[in-house]
Amino acid sequence: MSENHTYKKIEVVGSSSVSIEDAIKNALAECNKTLHHLEWFEMVDTRGHIVNGEVGHYQVTLKIGMRIQAE
Amino acid sequence: MSENHTYKKIEVVGSSSVSIEDAIKNALAECNKTLHHLEWFEMVDTRGHIVNGEVGHYQVTLKIGMRIQAE
Amino acid sequence: MSENHTYKKIEVVGSSSVSIEDAIKNALAECNKTLHHLEWFEMVDTRGHIVNGEVGHYQVTLKIGMRIQAE
Amino acid sequence: MSENHTYKKIEVVGSSSVSIEDAIKNALAECNKTLHHLEWFEMVDTRGHIVNGEVGHYQVTLKIGMRIQAE
Amino acid sequence: MSENHTYKKIEVVGSSSVSIEDAIKNALAECNKTLHHLEWFEMVDTRGHIVNGEVGHYQVTLKIGMRIQAE
Amino acid sequence: MSENHTYKKIEVVGSSSVSIEDAIKNALAECNKTLHHLEWFEMVDTRGHIVNGEVGHYQVTLKIGMRIQAE
Amino acid sequence: MSENHTYKKIEVVGSSSVSIEDAIKNALAECNKTLHHLEWFEMVDTRGHIVNGEVGHYQVTLKIGMRIQAE
Amino acid sequence: MSENHTYKKIEVVGSSSVSIEDAIKNALAECNKTLHHLEWFEMVDTRGHIVNGEVGHYQVTLKIGMRIQAE
Amino acid sequence: MSENHTYKKIEVVGSSSVSIEDAIKNALAECNKTLHHLEWFEMVDTRGHIVNGEVGHYQVTLKIGMRIQAE
Amino acid sequence: MSENHTYKKIEVVGSSSVSIEDAIKNALAECNKTLHHLEWFEMVDTRGHIVNGEVGHYQVTLKIGMRIQAE
Amino acid sequence: MSENHTYKKIEVVGSSSVSIEDAIKNALAECNKTLHHLEWFEMVDTRGHIVNGEVGHYQVTLKIGMRIQAE
Amino acid sequence: MSENHTYKKIEVVGSSSVSIEDAIKNALAECNKTLHHLEWFEMVDTRGHIVNGEVGHYQVTLKIGMRIQAE
Repeated sequence: MSENHTYKKIEVVGSSSVSIEDAIKNALAECNKTLHHLEWFEMVDTRGHIVNGEVGHYQVTLKIGMRIQAE
Repeated sequence: MSENHTYKKIEVVGSSSVSIEDAIKNALAECNKTLHHLEWFEMVDTRGHIVNGEVGHYQVTLKIGMRIQAE
Repeated sequence: MSENHTYKKIEVVGSSSVSIEDAIKNALAECNKTLHHLEWFEMVDTRGHIVNGEVGHYQVTLKIGMRIQAE
Repeated sequence: MSENHTYKKIEVVGSSSVSIEDAIKNALAECNKTLHHLEWFEMVDTRGHIVNGEVGHYQVTLKIGMRIQAE
Repeated sequence: MSENHTYKKIEVVGSSSVSIEDAIKNALAECNKTLHHLEWFEMVDTRGHIVNGEVGHYQVTLKIGMRIQAE
Repeated sequence: MSENHTYKKIEVVGSSSVSIEDAIKNALAECNKTLHHLEWFEMVDTRGHIVNGEVGHYQVTLKIGMRIQAE
Repeated sequence: MSENHTYKKIEVVGSSSVSIEDAIKNALAECNKTLHHLEWFEMVDTRGHIVNGEVGHYQVTLKIGMRIQAE
Repeated sequence: MSENHTYKKIEVVGSSSVSIEDAIKNALAECNKTLHHLEWFEMVDTRGHIVNGEVGHYQVTLKIGMRIQAE
Repeated sequence: MSENHTYKKIEVVGSSSVSIEDAIKNALAECNKTLHHLEWFEMVDTRGHIVNGEVGHYQVTLKIGMRIQAE
Repeated sequence: MSENHTYKKIEVVGSSSVSIEDAIKNALAECNKTLHHLEWFEMVDTRGHIVNGEVGHYQVTLKIGMRIQAE
Repeated sequence: MSENHTYKKIEVVGSSSVSIEDAIKNALAECNKTLHHLEWFEMVDTRGHIVNGEVGHYQVTLKIGMRIQAE
Repeated sequence: MSENHTYKKIEVVGSSSVSIEDAIKNALAECNKTLHHLEWFEMVDTRGHIVNGEVGHYQVTLKIGMRIQAE
């Protein structure tokens, strides 16, 4: 009963000029400002902008799973 | 005009120790507490936890379609 | 020679208000009325209608393989 | 820093009896009523209802990307 | 009971030199000559021939769902 | 006008103990007995039975496209 | 450190004449005889044999994740 | 012999503020300036920019097949 | 009961300089040295090395299904 | 350093009236006329034309990987 | 002959709180304790746990290819 | 008009013994030597060689989008 949790998954895109991991970190930090009970993420897609033949920004699409709190 | 409905799809994960159908039922019941005009669901993924060599919980990922009500 | 069977695959959608298995059963029963030599099925997709926040109907898309009888 | 935008992607279904492009337009117009900073869309799926052997409605599933505004 | 409809899905390719929507329309019109109870379509694939650097024909692959009438 | 052909695609499985090409050949020969205007095929899947650690039969799933003849 | 677990995933097919859930249960029970630390499963595919127009057996392909025990 | 043509496929993105068909037309016209023997295209992906809640541009990714001319 | 077999699927890559079928044959022969009850295979992927503009080796990835013998 | 090779992948379609392997061979031979450092291929798709109920031509889509030579 | 190697592919999940590359490294190190002739890996999936709005662990699913040694 | 840009996408594989990001950087640097107007990249696939149970090289397959300059 108390075990039958329901989760919601949202899809976000984080970006960073530093690394793929940093883009993930930025996306989670932004979501954590307004959302609660973030539990897991799944990488969906990685792409980026090229500036002068170098990576300008990594753009990482994530699905983030969060527990829906039963009141 | 009145025919041109727009729908929103959300992605949720329901769980149950009983069956796949029960996990779907639990997810819909939880969403129905706060959302309106739920119209259809699509199964995306089924997985589960194993406890002592048996299914502990089924976890069913669903997309749920709901009509956006034009006021 | 007699071993080189050819099979045809058709795609059908069965529905049931009871369970996923019952939707499969209903689809097979309907096909069995007019088709012969049904040998296997493959689940392609599961979705359903939501009525009052509960599952109204499961809709299971199947591919059904049937042997083409060489006369 | 100011470059590290985060985006949210939502999934919607627009419909139209006229054309695929019109279904996209209707979905965007509906979302634009309540959401801000819509930046891009991705077509996911196109289907439709058939009425008297003709297209009744096109139904186009879109993902819409919107920038999360950092305050 | 009367609700447990079964549907058959067929796959067809419509073509048109005019537009994607026109290729869909042509496919439905052709199927409607000999088949009944056409209810929905799903776009599977769009391709086309090129003639002199311009689109010669759009070729749209559709799945068409039709209700199997229980007598 | 005369250019706007419509095609039907069917899915069949051919088998052969000899080779993948022979399984395709067998499937086409079987379909050609009763169907007309076969124009192209697409390989969807290849599998087979193993007998005594060797290939017993190749089983090749094909989609076959045939022109619907406008009378 | 102690957190950096490694997991192995195996792919199995369970079968049952009763239900999809029962086929999963049978597969887990069989694996549990010889393998340890089974932690989760993922449904990959569901198909089955048809006998006399009815489901003879459900065949459910699962991936099973098990923790590799660091000694 | 003369039948054993080889084809090259390239991937391009066409854009248009008007329609999906117009984006395809623009991509083909651009490729036709410098490439020869364009024979077919396959739609891979459709997306677009949103400007003020409306479609700014459709962006259609195509694969284009061209015959390699044997000299 | 005796019908509720469980199967294990393994993934192997066979190679051959001769043909795709020969690469499958080689993979099965190698597996048959140490494994029992091999029942079916599924082709997953075909690739190869190029040597001097010709096929050096075909490399065929297979899943092989084998029955787990209940003692 | 010298190890950090970069590769380019191109997509081609080879054809043959004889066999799938022959279509691959023809595609590689054609590419080898003008391109250098071809290293591997990946089969993407196999289809073909049907002439009088028999295979007219196999058409095999390949990705071919070639090393970009650092001068 | 000596060229016709057969390879086995296994699927593992490595984890790390540091980076995606570190999760790969950990998985390889664990497999290398008991397996021989590891030759290549393919990333299949990346996900992770979220702890306090930050990445707790990256979890990277890999396929690892190893040569089967012919004795 | 000036807005209707056309883009070409090429597929390349970059490698690095250091990290996934470094393999991307190397691929972009190599392409930038001879190509112009590189605008974005999409990660398609990540794999690598294993040497002595450790990552020898990461190999990252990218699609790179470049604007076709209208003269």
